[in-house]
Amino acid sequence: MFKAEIRSDTLKSVVNIISTLIDEVKFTIDQDGMGLKAVDPAHVAMIEMQIGSGAFESFSADSTEIGVDLDKIKDVLKLAGASDVISIEQDEDRGKLIFKVGNITRRMNLVDTSSMGETKVPQLDLSASVSVPVSELQRGIKASESISDHIALTANEAGFSLSCEGDTDSVDLVLDKSVLSKLDVKSEVRSIFPLDYFSNLIKAVPSDLTVTIGLDTDFPVKINFDMADGNGKVRYLLAPRIEND
Amino acid sequence: MFKAEIRSDTLKSVVNIISTLIDEVKFTIDQDGMGLKAVDPAHVAMIEMQIGSGAFESFSADSTEIGVDLDKIKDVLKLAGASDVISIEQDEDRGKLIFKVGNITRRMNLVDTSSMGETKVPQLDLSASVSVPVSELQRGIKASESISDHIALTANEAGFSLSCEGDTDSVDLVLDKSVLSKLDVKSEVRSIFPLDYFSNLIKAVPSDLTVTIGLDTDFPVKINFDMADGNGKVRYLLAPRIEND
Amino acid sequence: MFKAEIRSDTLKSVVNIISTLIDEVKFTIDQDGMGLKAVDPAHVAMIEMQIGSGAFESFSADSTEIGVDLDKIKDVLKLAGASDVISIEQDEDRGKLIFKVGNITRRMNLVDTSSMGETKVPQLDLSASVSVPVSELQRGIKASESISDHIALTANEAGFSLSCEGDTDSVDLVLDKSVLSKLDVKSEVRSIFPLDYFSNLIKAVPSDLTVTIGLDTDFPVKINFDMADGNGKVRYLLAPRIEND
Repeated sequence: MFKAEIRSDTLKSVVNIISTLIDEVKFTIDQDGMGLKAVDPAHVAMIEMQIGSGAFESFSADSTEIGVDLDKIKDVLKLAGASDVISIEQDEDRGKLIFKVGNITRRMNLVDTSSMGETKVPQLDLSASVSVPVSELQRGIKASESISDHIALTANEAGFSLSCEGDTDSVDLVLDKSVLSKLDVKSEVRSIFPLDYFSNLIKAVPSDLTVTIGLDTDFPVKINFDMADGNGKVRYLLAPRIEND
Repeated sequence: MFKAEIRSDTLKSVVNIISTLIDEVKFTIDQDGMGLKAVDPAHVAMIEMQIGSGAFESFSADSTEIGVDLDKIKDVLKLAGASDVISIEQDEDRGKLIFKVGNITRRMNLVDTSSMGETKVPQLDLSASVSVPVSELQRGIKASESISDHIALTANEAGFSLSCEGDTDSVDLVLDKSVLSKLDVKSEVRSIFPLDYFSNLIKAVPSDLTVTIGLDTDFPVKINFDMADGNGKVRYLLAPRIEND
Repeated sequence: MFKAEIRSDTLKSVVNIISTLIDEVKFTIDQDGMGLKAVDPAHVAMIEMQIGSGAFESFSADSTEIGVDLDKIKDVLKLAGASDVISIEQDEDRGKLIFKVGNITRRMNLVDTSSMGETKVPQLDLSASVSVPVSELQRGIKASESISDHIALTANEAGFSLSCEGDTDSVDLVLDKSVLSKLDVKSEVRSIFPLDYFSNLIKAVPSDLTVTIGLDTDFPVKINFDMADGNGKVRYLLAPRIEND
């Protein structure tokens, strides 16, 4: 059993973030909320998300799993204004999920989850941790898009930087301590990442949020943030590109 | 002779509605206003429109017919703000229509109407009649577009519904008496219609209007509405798709 | 040496106007400001622009020449709001230009100017001179685009007009003395010009400006205007199309 109500803008943020990696997702639901773990088809990035019942306007559920096609939820979201409340209910007898927006009812088949494997999101102990306003990262990405398809992230005692080096041109976004709400660095660390994955995630995060970036040299980057007034927790891991010297 | 002035937004609504069916139209003009009857090339839908002289800022005409290419009027409309007044004048000597928007004069050749047949719009006696806010229908159409290319319209004593059934998903817009300014139904009626025709018309109708829908089982749907503060009257007929049981 | 700061919207106007003719440009810089002369690849139009140091928030330079790819400056402009100040500095050792917008630094290779010839912009003595609001010309262009690919500009004692004649349709924008801040005409003059060149320029000019049009029969049109509170001066020449009678 699963029955809940959620604001359109909250659901939209959730869907936009997950769909940077996958089109179909398995939510694991219990009485405390819903969660998911997923890896993209190329196994370059992973996401773990937990949305507590407090993120919903109303929430009641037994333990269950539901598989959902995210494009169909996007269709539903187009019918609602940002502050509209969408009701969601599982129709267990018929294997359907029922969305209601005002006078409109949309029924959709659940996606079979039996072929979706379990994703294990590793615990990583990374030496640097930096809290960065998303809006700054979004500007840095925008500046990088015409330069190269990789970016370098660097953290040192002075601050955090995003750099993109092309054949003739380069871009650097340098954020010193004054714009970082947290800067915990032992020694300088630096890794290179595919711009498209990093860009798709950061563009999907609401621009008024702050993300905490865990970084180490030639290690995956860990991007953690809270959504929905702290009721949603996201952990994202992106594999580095190892440079050949 | 035909000489008139009309607000840009009024002319735009007229053109948008007609151009859901045809590209070139013959207006029949007399001293009381202008009218048209038209059927789309596939003979699936028909429209009859009467725009009284009261819909114009000024209007003077003798009995005449003019053939117009609607895309050219759309070009003219792009030059005007919503509340700008457009002047229209027939240049009988040269077979042209002259539009003026501010400092700009646009002359266009009239379209030859001799090959345009007379459209007879049948009188239909349909058992159900329902008045529905256009904004609700527009939301129902938006929800249906990814589901199927046909919709069912149903009226019964409880209200009016628009339904769209796909292979795996479905959408229902259910409007009860409280949102219907008129609900006149003897027994439940239901017909199926092509979504694209219905959608194109309803999207072209100003969203603050209410349309009256005449419906019967396996009959065409009749959609009537007033525009331009009651000075414009539109009757639209759309053929049903007969379901095989 | 060249180091300056300029408002984003000022730089944007400069770049938009130049890029109607060319993609790469050579700026000639001295202590008073920067200038350029350019002709399009088809030698149909020429531009001469002088941007005085007063157009910049700060400006210091020795005599130098720099070659720039305008598309790259457009990338930089996308990172800035209209009133943001962009800093520009030449890195002479490495042949680069360095742009800074807030926390972002963009380095770009200079374009080799050795193969860019010197453009001589001829002095023309044209008999008619008319000052026209750009917003009116922009409306006239918009009305002309579906009619023909040439426009006629006419000036006489009554005013100024832009006309476009197609096979079946025509457009006329007629501006009488009341909307012209200057009308200096000896006798009627008229020339025909390619719509695309004229349109691209006029669309790139800020719509609150007034341009002074120098016109003569079967001569190039000269379009002069000031930008950046009079600190930027633009002269534009467009070759006529000679009609065969």
